[in-house]
Amino acid sequence: MSESVTVEFDEDGLVPAVAQSAADGTVLMLAYVNEEALERTRETGEAHYYSRSREELWHKGGSSGHTQSVEEIRVDCDADTLLYVVEQEGGACHTGFESCFHRTLDGEEVGERVFDPEEVYGDG
Amino acid sequence: MSESVTVEFDEDGLVPAVAQSAADGTVLMLAYVNEEALERTRETGEAHYYSRSREELWHKGGSSGHTQSVEEIRVDCDADTLLYVVEQEGGACHTGFESCFHRTLDGEEVGERVFDPEEVYGDG
Repeated sequence: MSESVTVEFDEDGLVPAVAQSAADGTVLMLAYVNEEALERTRETGEAHYYSRSREELWHKGGSSGHTQSVEEIRVDCDADTLLYVVEQEGGACHTGFESCFHRTLDGEEVGERVFDPEEVYGDG
Repeated sequence: MSESVTVEFDEDGLVPAVAQSAADGTVLMLAYVNEEALERTRETGEAHYYSRSREELWHKGGSSGHTQSVEEIRVDCDADTLLYVVEQEGGACHTGFESCFHRTLDGEEVGERVFDPEEVYGDG
């Protein structure tokens, strides 16, 4: 029988979590997770993070509808990084792209735009 | 023409970098990168990181031979996380697995072991 892994949260109580598409392996985003966010993710099956800018629990897609249904949570060898394998509703990126990693470092667009952010987040 | 993206290093001069296999999309590892590591990566085409534990530039695979040939460097929407798309020699994980994310949070092994760490790192 396998034993549950103890996650090594850092001094701020956080670990980075990478979200990857279960469908095609695309790396969608990286955000941070605290103990509460991880618990809520396991309880609900939907990805939760901790927003460092808003300093609060963040249910991804809670307002946009672009939720992430978590198929599996993996942990790395040091237990200080998580991998959420997810089914992504809509797109992960607030800019309308499937992935937040939609540009190369040289600024070339390589990602796929999957929704119009104005329609999802805009006032109009 | 596209413009180069300015990376937003944190107060410690670091950003997290996710390494993903160009061959099959596997998320291999997460490590940290400072400006020097990023420059060395771009100059050499092989993944460099900053080792927070050893507090030094880290040429991945420099001793084990398990280098990462970088095909593309992507940056996320906030420019505070990198994605190295790589061809991995051997395995990314020092435990002998292809990926450092070889376990679920429940401790189930889901990864593929690709080398014997004793042979690569051991004394024998």
